[in-house]
Amino acid sequence: MTEAPQGSAAGYAPVRAVPTAVEAAMRRALLLAAQGPAHGPNPRVGCVLLDPDGRTVAEGFHRGAGTPHAEAAALAAARSRGVDPRGTTAVVTLEPCAHHGRTGPCADALIDAGVTAVHLAVRDPNPLATGGVARLRAAGIDVSTGILADEGQELLRPWLHAVRTGRPYVTLKLATSLDGRVAAADGTSRWITGPQARAHAHTVRAQVDAIAVGTGTALADDPSLTARTLDGGLFEHQPLRVVLGRRGVPDDARLRGTGGALLHLPEHDVDTALARLAEREVRHLLVEGGPTLATALLAADAVDEIHAYVAPVLLGAGATVVGDLGISTIGAAARFATRDVTRLGDDVLLVARRAEPTQNLAPGSDPGPSPDARSAQPRQNGRPGRPTQEEI
Amino acid sequence: MTEAPQGSAAGYAPVRAVPTAVEAAMRRALLLAAQGPAHGPNPRVGCVLLDPDGRTVAEGFHRGAGTPHAEAAALAAARSRGVDPRGTTAVVTLEPCAHHGRTGPCADALIDAGVTAVHLAVRDPNPLATGGVARLRAAGIDVSTGILADEGQELLRPWLHAVRTGRPYVTLKLATSLDGRVAAADGTSRWITGPQARAHAHTVRAQVDAIAVGTGTALADDPSLTARTLDGGLFEHQPLRVVLGRRGVPDDARLRGTGGALLHLPEHDVDTALARLAEREVRHLLVEGGPTLATALLAADAVDEIHAYVAPVLLGAGATVVGDLGISTIGAAARFATRDVTRLGDDVLLVARRAEPTQNLAPGSDPGPSPDARSAQPRQNGRPGRPTQEEI
Repeated sequence: MTEAPQGSAAGYAPVRAVPTAVEAAMRRALLLAAQGPAHGPNPRVGCVLLDPDGRTVAEGFHRGAGTPHAEAAALAAARSRGVDPRGTTAVVTLEPCAHHGRTGPCADALIDAGVTAVHLAVRDPNPLATGGVARLRAAGIDVSTGILADEGQELLRPWLHAVRTGRPYVTLKLATSLDGRVAAADGTSRWITGPQARAHAHTVRAQVDAIAVGTGTALADDPSLTARTLDGGLFEHQPLRVVLGRRGVPDDARLRGTGGALLHLPEHDVDTALARLAEREVRHLLVEGGPTLATALLAADAVDEIHAYVAPVLLGAGATVVGDLGISTIGAAARFATRDVTRLGDDVLLVARRAEPTQNLAPGSDPGPSPDARSAQPRQNGRPGRPTQEEI
Repeated sequence: MTEAPQGSAAGYAPVRAVPTAVEAAMRRALLLAAQGPAHGPNPRVGCVLLDPDGRTVAEGFHRGAGTPHAEAAALAAARSRGVDPRGTTAVVTLEPCAHHGRTGPCADALIDAGVTAVHLAVRDPNPLATGGVARLRAAGIDVSTGILADEGQELLRPWLHAVRTGRPYVTLKLATSLDGRVAAADGTSRWITGPQARAHAHTVRAQVDAIAVGTGTALADDPSLTARTLDGGLFEHQPLRVVLGRRGVPDDARLRGTGGALLHLPEHDVDTALARLAEREVRHLLVEGGPTLATALLAADAVDEIHAYVAPVLLGAGATVVGDLGISTIGAAARFATRDVTRLGDDVLLVARRAEPTQNLAPGSDPGPSPDARSAQPRQNGRPGRPTQEEI
């Protein structure tokens, strides 16, 4: 199309009287953002340009490091259709950057394009990128923030965590029997969970920057740690494969075969290992075992999210999914807050997160109630109040 | 109402040309049946009487031992409205009984009433009650069976099991952390799961005939084992409270307080204990722990259904939900087939059943694939086929 749609001429007033149009555009921008890659150093961002009547003029999203940012993509899309973006309103999921990276600052691009208003979901906590809102306002652009902020935060959760804390968002994958075992007494472990659970786990691998296992698991299971499709092929994105621990990785290990790069970190200290991974721009780390590594991460309060695949299986013996966490009494249990429960064939996937983002979940501390549940009853030391003394 | 509805006079032809009306009536009969008590020696049964146009004339259900059977209730309901049931079609969820119990045989009641056709969901496996279909047919009544048979079997599952096998349907309740623990290292265990999971467990208690614990749990936890409502009150039905094991129950135990009758079975043999309970007309037994009893039941292949309440909690130490089952390798794992997955607050309830009703799930045997899942891939010894050698 080379014809400018009706009303796209310069001199628009910003969209103020139609908040529902802005919200609808933000929902669209979030969907666009989600089309970008979840992995990689850059955040997923979507942008929709609206005319003063709230109609979409153009849209764009970020397709990964080295490609245009969402705002630039939307402006380019408008121009490629012969539409002058002057006077439009930009609806963007993340604060436009104000720094020169591989592309110029998006704030400047919006200013130069003559955009009159900008609506944002999430402010950018990145100290290198922040300042976009200030720069836009200094240029006389009307800026509002916090539109669908929760959804925006959710989309960028691992990235925001990594930027704010300087270390990767750690998702711990557990695949266990109902009695918490990851292997039978003789060490055999394939397969506790079923094919649907395993397929799901591979889609998660395709969304993270790196997968880590301990040397014990690397030696015992000889995993490939690739992200594979249902037909056994490889996803386009293959995460970095990380082995943590002092023992070496054999020359003929599958970890050295086709797949992501292999990184052997002979570290025993969790904080050091995570810092090394952050230096390599790992924003989201998936930890797949074994129990020794899981235990170390939990004990160091380094687990942000748990993906527990639980199979309707009982073993009665064999290795347990975690070792001693230094927890001696029930009030000190490491409690997470459930986010999602999904049935996968015969198995169930329970996704749970650190009960509160800034809360100390270290062994020995009481995490208290989770924010999204257990609010109906007062709790003391992890124990809800009850109207009677009879408890069981 | 004393006026007979149109078309309720004698001489009806049976409902044959409107199978959808019969199926709709069976759905209604199943809903009626479900209004009866799930506990007790008698099955839940519903009955709908249809006129030849497929319109409902009357309905009834069984309200528990000592009250009229569903067929008698429906016939009485018709008569109380001044409707002569002669010529109607009876749609009943279970084969009408042919024996004299506390009430007369329902087959005779239907014959005497002049019902012309009977449609059934489930045949009665009870050797004392069976023969209803034969008696009806001998009287010239048109009988069809298997209408919504799956739904009918599901409704009566514990009862059918008990009648067929002569021992109670055993539901094993587990409430664990993600690492399969039922208590912390110091033995404290309240509360791993949250209030919604506990409330659900109480509604299950209100539907069973008996609850069992081992003496270890009875002594350690001093449970009341009552079925309580959300406000702490007691459900009308309180299950029999059973303690299994040789140690005595203290005089001041809560188990001796308000609630169901207490039965102490100083048995260590599972088969003997279940036979004793069957003698007391226990059709559905809920086993609530502890690990010793759960292990004994699983090892004896006596668990028909598992209710696993799993909390997003890690403990790392403490008692595990089951002890040694004699399972040494993964192919011999005790696998169940998942029926339902329900989120309850932060916890998840996984309801799973014996993979196949007649299958041997004893330790050391391979139960093979479950009937409702895992069918997409060939399996050998519990392990699905995969297109590649790469497995993890």
